[in-house]
Amino acid sequence: MNTPNSHTSLHRRSVLTGSASALAMIGLASWSRGSLAQTAVAPKPLPAFVSWKDASSVIVHSGTTIETKRSAFGTSVITPAEQLYIRNNLPAPDAAIVADRDAWEINIEGVQNPRKLTVRDLKSLGLETVAMVLQCSGNGRGFFPSKPSGTPWTVGAAGCVVWSGVPVKAVVDLLGGMASGARYMTGTGGEKLPAGIDPKSIMVERSVPVAAMADALLAWEMNGAPISLAHGGPLRLIVPGYTGVNNIKYVKQLAFSTQESDAKIMSHGYRMTPAGGKSDPSQPSVQEMTVKSWINSPSAEDGPTSGQIKAGMVQIQGVAFGGLNAVKGVEVSVDGGKTWQAARLVGPDLGKYAWRQFVLQARLSPGNYTMASRATDMAGNMQPQTRGENLSGYNNTSWADHAVKINVA
Amino acid sequence: MNTPNSHTSLHRRSVLTGSASALAMIGLASWSRGSLAQTAVAPKPLPAFVSWKDASSVIVHSGTTIETKRSAFGTSVITPAEQLYIRNNLPAPDAAIVADRDAWEINIEGVQNPRKLTVRDLKSLGLETVAMVLQCSGNGRGFFPSKPSGTPWTVGAAGCVVWSGVPVKAVVDLLGGMASGARYMTGTGGEKLPAGIDPKSIMVERSVPVAAMADALLAWEMNGAPISLAHGGPLRLIVPGYTGVNNIKYVKQLAFSTQESDAKIMSHGYRMTPAGGKSDPSQPSVQEMTVKSWINSPSAEDGPTSGQIKAGMVQIQGVAFGGLNAVKGVEVSVDGGKTWQAARLVGPDLGKYAWRQFVLQARLSPGNYTMASRATDMAGNMQPQTRGENLSGYNNTSWADHAVKINVA
Repeated sequence: MNTPNSHTSLHRRSVLTGSASALAMIGLASWSRGSLAQTAVAPKPLPAFVSWKDASSVIVHSGTTIETKRSAFGTSVITPAEQLYIRNNLPAPDAAIVADRDAWEINIEGVQNPRKLTVRDLKSLGLETVAMVLQCSGNGRGFFPSKPSGTPWTVGAAGCVVWSGVPVKAVVDLLGGMASGARYMTGTGGEKLPAGIDPKSIMVERSVPVAAMADALLAWEMNGAPISLAHGGPLRLIVPGYTGVNNIKYVKQLAFSTQESDAKIMSHGYRMTPAGGKSDPSQPSVQEMTVKSWINSPSAEDGPTSGQIKAGMVQIQGVAFGGLNAVKGVEVSVDGGKTWQAARLVGPDLGKYAWRQFVLQARLSPGNYTMASRATDMAGNMQPQTRGENLSGYNNTSWADHAVKINVA
Repeated sequence: MNTPNSHTSLHRRSVLTGSASALAMIGLASWSRGSLAQTAVAPKPLPAFVSWKDASSVIVHSGTTIETKRSAFGTSVITPAEQLYIRNNLPAPDAAIVADRDAWEINIEGVQNPRKLTVRDLKSLGLETVAMVLQCSGNGRGFFPSKPSGTPWTVGAAGCVVWSGVPVKAVVDLLGGMASGARYMTGTGGEKLPAGIDPKSIMVERSVPVAAMADALLAWEMNGAPISLAHGGPLRLIVPGYTGVNNIKYVKQLAFSTQESDAKIMSHGYRMTPAGGKSDPSQPSVQEMTVKSWINSPSAEDGPTSGQIKAGMVQIQGVAFGGLNAVKGVEVSVDGGKTWQAARLVGPDLGKYAWRQFVLQARLSPGNYTMASRATDMAGNMQPQTRGENLSGYNNTSWADHAVKINVA
């Protein structure tokens, strides 16, 4: 066991309003164990529910938080399931729920004709496929000098994956349309909640603006295979362009309402709380992603010496995405942002919610380089130099934070 | 052990010109064992070199031939590595070759400045990514009433995967361009050849027209991860639009020449030989793929009863590709081709070499249905009703052969 840092889990504990010890008692302590990895030295083994992941491509922070290594992303757009990050707010339900996937039920509320539908039903109602960046709200948290509570992800709490399912809109249309006045779409996760704790204090339930419904899916497949338990199978709510937590795993209810959910994870969790402040429902919720990019190679994980490469021609490559907008272009700097050159976008364009690969070919002589990338989206938004400071280390899109220092020998 | 059918491996044996017993002696008997699966009853276990495949999604025909189940393709465009088919002409080399991937060498011949390059060198020369259908020349062989020798694949010796590597053109340009008069690009596989056999009789070496160089890659990555040994890592020649055998695994030489290779696998293997005839080098080589599609769901593998589904709304879905051309559209028939309806293309378009998912939503009442799909490519070519008969069962694009019989109850 590691000893918690002084700043560990304070935020989580405040969200839980005192329930942390109860959680520990019933074996849910991993819920709040994310940031302990900062003190870990030896690599942790893969947890049993993701024993099928590729151990060599990931960093195991805790039993429910696993990050893709920066050097493992590769250059072919798709992130394979065995490399994709894991961040579960609660332990995954029992594997029994994926034994008969088609029997899983979801309750649709806040429509003209509310009803339960099985996955089998959903599969008869429509089919759509979307490639998108799935990214944890806290990806890049590890770059905050304030060391916020939570897993210190650098770049690897993200991936580009392909989902298939039925458009939420098709389901809503079938059920007579949304109830009048609906402003939010709320998904509720099917995790098993511990007894003796107010469900609202722990349940995974998130609301997004109803506008997000347009491209949302109730998905049963990821990257060509049924969604694994670890990634939310048998059924996951997919809200393209929204951070990971809004894409509800094991989704058991989808509701349209005039108010946001009052579950703690919505009212106080994932808020853009000022550094040093306290979270409250009036602060902006962490939802839509914005333009971001980073370099994956060369990286500090490459080569015999960390961050050292041989002089000569180098392919500087990485990924860029725009959140709700497609990527227009990416620039790369090898001098810490003093000068920039346009990179080339590589490979197939999987649509506006996916990331693009970029590459800049550069001939580098020996010396020290600070390599950074800066993306611009189709709406003209440019990735900023600096992060937006906030209590919990959310939404870090700073190009300076994501720069890599490389020694060319 | 199974007992060979009378028609088993005759073609292979003639290609090997008597070397089959020598192969068996040194443990290479699996080379010619493909079609034995026709007589198998119990599922075979996954061979050791692909123990990481998803056993529930594949049919193991032999130690070097594994097919994706029709029902396993799913609906999200990409075929994950653990579901992708395997067809090795020779057993894979020792896994030691993927221990230091960057050290793998390829010899480039038939250019102005021939030389050896390591994968490390190649990675500095350029980067491109292409999504493409990888399909065995004999996919669909199982539908030939003539029961040709070779693995009786139905639809699953194919997948849509993403490759990353350096464009062959960039390498050739760097080496001063092709030698004058070059008409063919020839890749040679790095399999270990048994002693005492004429190498030409067994080596995997294939020539394609130099025009195919335009989009060809020397690839080190598939679907976001280093290419596995089973799929040709550390380096594979990727020739988009060409059947699987032309995409040379463990590629150790790439040569530009005025003549095709005289290796048996080129001169006599993979030829469009008339049924009942003998293969010879004057016959068309099996290279470019042409327009093809098939339905994956519903399929005869679905549901509690084979090929039986419930009455009501059904999503009829499958995949379509054009070989060298993008897919323009797909039609679906539920009455064995008497009438056709336009299907909808679903999800991201990964480029002209990839396949598209299609779906037709239909309300079906109880009865028997013969469901077929028929694709048209951008050049106006339409998938034919009938297969082109040939000795070895290559290039089956017949929509009638790929139809599925479904009982709606």
